[in-house]
Amino acid sequence: MVNGDIDLFRPRSLAIVGASREPGKVGHAILKNVINSGFQGKVYPINPKAEEVLGIKAYKSVLDVPDDIDLAVIVVPASIALDVAEECGRKGVKNLIVISAGFKEIGGDGVERERRLLDIARKYGMRMVGPNCLGIIDTYTPINASFSATMPRRGNIAFISQSGALLTAILDWSIKKGIGFSRIVSLGNKADLNEADFIQAVEEDVNTRVVLLYLESIENGRHLIEVAGRVSRKKPIVLLKGGVTEAGARAAMSHTGAMVSSIAALEAGLRKAGILIARNLSELFDYAIAFSCQPVPMNNRIAVVTNAGGPGVVTSDMIVSRGLRLASLAPDTVGNLRSKLPPAAAVYNPVDVLGDARADRYSYAIETVLNDDNVDGLVVILTPQAMTEPVETARAMLKLNKKYPNKPMIGVFIGGDMVEEASRVLIESGIPVYDLPERGVAAIYGMCRYRENLEYLEKISERATFFDVDRATALSIISSVRGENRRTLLESEAKDLVRSYGIPVAPTRLARNEDEAVDIAAKLGYPVVLKIASPDIMHKTDIGGVVMNLNSEREVRDAFRTIIDRAYRYAPKALVYGVVVQKMVPRSREVIIGVSRDPVFGHVIMFGLGGIYTNIFKDVSFRLAPLSVHEAKEMVSETKAYTLLRGYRGEEPSDISSIINTLLRVSQLVSDIPDIVEMDINPLFVYGEGMGSLAIDVKVVLS
Amino acid sequence: MVNGDIDLFRPRSLAIVGASREPGKVGHAILKNVINSGFQGKVYPINPKAEEVLGIKAYKSVLDVPDDIDLAVIVVPASIALDVAEECGRKGVKNLIVISAGFKEIGGDGVERERRLLDIARKYGMRMVGPNCLGIIDTYTPINASFSATMPRRGNIAFISQSGALLTAILDWSIKKGIGFSRIVSLGNKADLNEADFIQAVEEDVNTRVVLLYLESIENGRHLIEVAGRVSRKKPIVLLKGGVTEAGARAAMSHTGAMVSSIAALEAGLRKAGILIARNLSELFDYAIAFSCQPVPMNNRIAVVTNAGGPGVVTSDMIVSRGLRLASLAPDTVGNLRSKLPPAAAVYNPVDVLGDARADRYSYAIETVLNDDNVDGLVVILTPQAMTEPVETARAMLKLNKKYPNKPMIGVFIGGDMVEEASRVLIESGIPVYDLPERGVAAIYGMCRYRENLEYLEKISERATFFDVDRATALSIISSVRGENRRTLLESEAKDLVRSYGIPVAPTRLARNEDEAVDIAAKLGYPVVLKIASPDIMHKTDIGGVVMNLNSEREVRDAFRTIIDRAYRYAPKALVYGVVVQKMVPRSREVIIGVSRDPVFGHVIMFGLGGIYTNIFKDVSFRLAPLSVHEAKEMVSETKAYTLLRGYRGEEPSDISSIINTLLRVSQLVSDIPDIVEMDINPLFVYGEGMGSLAIDVKVVLS
Repeated sequence: MVNGDIDLFRPRSLAIVGASREPGKVGHAILKNVINSGFQGKVYPINPKAEEVLGIKAYKSVLDVPDDIDLAVIVVPASIALDVAEECGRKGVKNLIVISAGFKEIGGDGVERERRLLDIARKYGMRMVGPNCLGIIDTYTPINASFSATMPRRGNIAFISQSGALLTAILDWSIKKGIGFSRIVSLGNKADLNEADFIQAVEEDVNTRVVLLYLESIENGRHLIEVAGRVSRKKPIVLLKGGVTEAGARAAMSHTGAMVSSIAALEAGLRKAGILIARNLSELFDYAIAFSCQPVPMNNRIAVVTNAGGPGVVTSDMIVSRGLRLASLAPDTVGNLRSKLPPAAAVYNPVDVLGDARADRYSYAIETVLNDDNVDGLVVILTPQAMTEPVETARAMLKLNKKYPNKPMIGVFIGGDMVEEASRVLIESGIPVYDLPERGVAAIYGMCRYRENLEYLEKISERATFFDVDRATALSIISSVRGENRRTLLESEAKDLVRSYGIPVAPTRLARNEDEAVDIAAKLGYPVVLKIASPDIMHKTDIGGVVMNLNSEREVRDAFRTIIDRAYRYAPKALVYGVVVQKMVPRSREVIIGVSRDPVFGHVIMFGLGGIYTNIFKDVSFRLAPLSVHEAKEMVSETKAYTLLRGYRGEEPSDISSIINTLLRVSQLVSDIPDIVEMDINPLFVYGEGMGSLAIDVKVVLS
Repeated sequence: MVNGDIDLFRPRSLAIVGASREPGKVGHAILKNVINSGFQGKVYPINPKAEEVLGIKAYKSVLDVPDDIDLAVIVVPASIALDVAEECGRKGVKNLIVISAGFKEIGGDGVERERRLLDIARKYGMRMVGPNCLGIIDTYTPINASFSATMPRRGNIAFISQSGALLTAILDWSIKKGIGFSRIVSLGNKADLNEADFIQAVEEDVNTRVVLLYLESIENGRHLIEVAGRVSRKKPIVLLKGGVTEAGARAAMSHTGAMVSSIAALEAGLRKAGILIARNLSELFDYAIAFSCQPVPMNNRIAVVTNAGGPGVVTSDMIVSRGLRLASLAPDTVGNLRSKLPPAAAVYNPVDVLGDARADRYSYAIETVLNDDNVDGLVVILTPQAMTEPVETARAMLKLNKKYPNKPMIGVFIGGDMVEEASRVLIESGIPVYDLPERGVAAIYGMCRYRENLEYLEKISERATFFDVDRATALSIISSVRGENRRTLLESEAKDLVRSYGIPVAPTRLARNEDEAVDIAAKLGYPVVLKIASPDIMHKTDIGGVVMNLNSEREVRDAFRTIIDRAYRYAPKALVYGVVVQKMVPRSREVIIGVSRDPVFGHVIMFGLGGIYTNIFKDVSFRLAPLSVHEAKEMVSETKAYTLLRGYRGEEPSDISSIINTLLRVSQLVSDIPDIVEMDINPLFVYGEGMGSLAIDVKVVLS
């Protein structure tokens, strides 16, 4: 977060505009926090009515300060915040934190006020946090330029939150839980700096090992993907997203006024950004604790060492339910365990060292298991029983964790007083320990997911080679539609558009009258289909606007008249261009390819099995454009339809590579022509292997 | 748990056989626990070598005790446990707790030893806990007849666990968390008393309000359903099941040696028993805490009052994701909130009273919301901010909780030190409070699920009226198959069997030779299908054993020869009875009805859409026999196929009531003939409404 050569988190001097002498006021709290945090730079309280605040000489305006100001924290009422910002700009302040509320979040005037505030910041080249935020904290600088009452412990977790109240509550909670932070950022309204900027800022921050986000809205999906996709390769980014249900989104909108993405776009975007999703606050922090001190496992094969059968069973269930694998121990490992453990011990994973295990037996079992190449990570469960030595066992774990530094180790110590000291020993030396199996499994699951995300980012980094397409034709179709002031392309136009991008279509021409229809039919060759051509009639079949299997001139003429007649009867106000004549093509397996444009993430491409099954079984996949080859392949293979397409129970396999090819061409098309807000190829007929596919109906809508 | 007139949990006198003077020994720990628990009855240590143990006069044998013994706790090695049990029997002891290990859990000799132990108990009419258990605790008697070091706090939760180690760990943990128990039971090997017995025992226990179970195996599914189905109506029963994945089940088997149920049977069984499922230990206890002090909500409409937007959003997401509803506040409620809350407050659900809310504002909002008939339950979120009054807010909540006793109230107080006292105030007076939103939502979800379970038990209590069937024919078919020493019925037999229970089948006869085939075809009427008739060939189509659409005598003769020929070629060792001739019937929508017999829960009935979609989309439902009408209806309506069957997009609706009728008849058939271990009607053709359905192929396998 460097502006010029001034790091927002490491200012040499700081002014607090609105610093107050009155305890309880925010402007008082912030100054006090800055002082108490041990900030080493210069501090200038700005207060027009005071000579000094908290024993520090105060100035009437930033303009009166006889020194450079790197960072100004603005705490004055919204009504005068713009004037203050203007003064800061004139003073040459580099960064602003605007605590003041009364901007976009209140709607109405506030929206305009925020726009003007941003204009001022831009005019003077200042970067700005907020408005309507809590401030920022860096525990290493150290600086607490926020009105949070709590200065967190020092740690290596950066926490960036769109909810200020959640931050304060979690900071208080974190002290009790012994969780430490490197940085805390309250995003506020994100008028200037947003989540992507702060993720970028921690990229090179040596004190941060993992980034936690709480977001209710995403400002710029494409930018987030770019930044997070890069930073994720160095440090895990974990997100708890508020507003993932319709009800939650409504609640979020009511207090942020932000744009909302579709769930499909959001999921596709976060996947592309390599961001890990936490389902709730426990997961967010359980992941963070694990990342903050343990290595990422090389694979998903997890071993469990326990002194109690029940918790071992439950943990095994959870490991498998989460999609991880219970490691298969090598015969040598099993043999070694069997030779030294009591006969009643379980020597397969989960390894049960039995209730009377002391630290030495635990140590032997743990080391034996860690030595096994089939094991990528370890959960050690301890329940306090008569012979159990919790602290000694913890010490043995620490020793072995150092000796095997590439395999993460997680403790699950179930109990109260009897395991308290041991848990402290573990946490303080860098082995995360949880009180219940589900939390330990969540932590190791998070780490495995992160490794998968890294592999995924690698796979999708290989961009699809661009196809050689007829872009000129495509653009001329679009401009002719625009010329007619239309947003919806006619079927024939839409088909020409996709054909210009190399997607085979069932030959189709627009006929404006009966004679044209007959001519076209003759040219295309019988049998043909006639469909109503009207930008106002989307569901052609519903009004009887499609007649199939026409084999002669007479049938074409009859069908033409019938369709036009029905159109005028059922949609009297519709603009009718005539009918499109399409050559009948052999039926085949039907799939659907669709595109919609999300306000936050841009074009989302959908793939699904055609027919009623798409609707009934919701068997569809989504990815953001532009697609890599890997993503296009995944879109097909992750649907259940894939089983059918590969040839189920002796049926002929479908030409899957032609679907992938079509997906990639669609991706290139919408990337070249961002005006497209909606597009559907429905159905796409897919023929046997090597036989390709054919777009039967195509719809395109422009913005 | 009354044997004679002696309650296991309230003995007047107790002997500890194997009471030891040596600290660290289990026989020492138990005696100490009994004494320390404040047990008021008489205590007799039994030790052949000691005059007294822990200051109490000891006896060499129970036979030497000059008084009645209600309960004997046996702690001696397995090798002499049988002799001790025998002595207890002769002494007239009513109940045994066998702590000793070395029985079924070690396999081999242990299995036989356990059988003999049980024989002794039965011979003398003694009831027995264990062997291989930790013992029992009742905090009201009070008695701690276990070797758990911890005497739990008194509370109204009964915890019954198949894992002893889990119990001790959780007891230690519970002290720290402030959770209290009425009873603790360690089930051990369940040779005699099992989960169902202990559930029954708490039915009338006034001190127990909720029952928690940790089980790895279920001894008798039908008995559990009967008992739990009854007790559930009075007290919620919550189960954490270990071994719900294959890996977990394998781990469980290795340390319990118990039978394992299929997941489908388990889920169907628990549903029928009205047992609530917890997915992990946190849920188990978060549910329990809520049940222990709050009323069950009347419906699923939940309101949220918060002083912070972010946590409100997250909580709303979680409520909706869990399948509950965010209550729509009545216009009056919204008006009242708007009139008294600050303008920036959110007056729709979630209600945001803003960061500067003091207790009075919380109180107003909470009462306004509780007054709303659209609200069934309330989550109050508090984050510690500058003006927040956590303790006063907690007190206001308690007052309102008393004033509105029918609506559960849950606190989510996020923070550390700043909310600690307030949380204590709430817990101590009976409002559950959680530190994170997910836990509070889990609790209220558990309560809503319980209410749904109660409604469900009501619905399925109405048994289907029995159909008037031809049971004699059915039994004679079975006995003739048995007579031939077969387990698999021929297709014609299987069809006759289901027809005798009133299920329409496509007319089918067995032809032993070509001429018979021709005769039968003529009788049934052309066209016909021929299928191989062999108990050894299950997948007829795979060997070309089915020829369809035969229209003449010549075609029938050709097909007969072809089929027999193929059968001898592809399955030379198969016993071939000939072919079955079946009348071709009009094609229609295909569904499947299947039955399997689970070792724990008995017959499980399956319904699904026919064809490849059942396999690909796993669109199937399961219920245990016997089915109530409600269950049969649900089986159809909960599949996605239901959308198709009702008539999708203008297609003709199928005769759903004929499917339900078939399901009920199948249920009656397998209930009458428990020998059936497998049965499939695949496909069942379902025709249009009022047109019925027809079993096309039927397979039946006996035990």
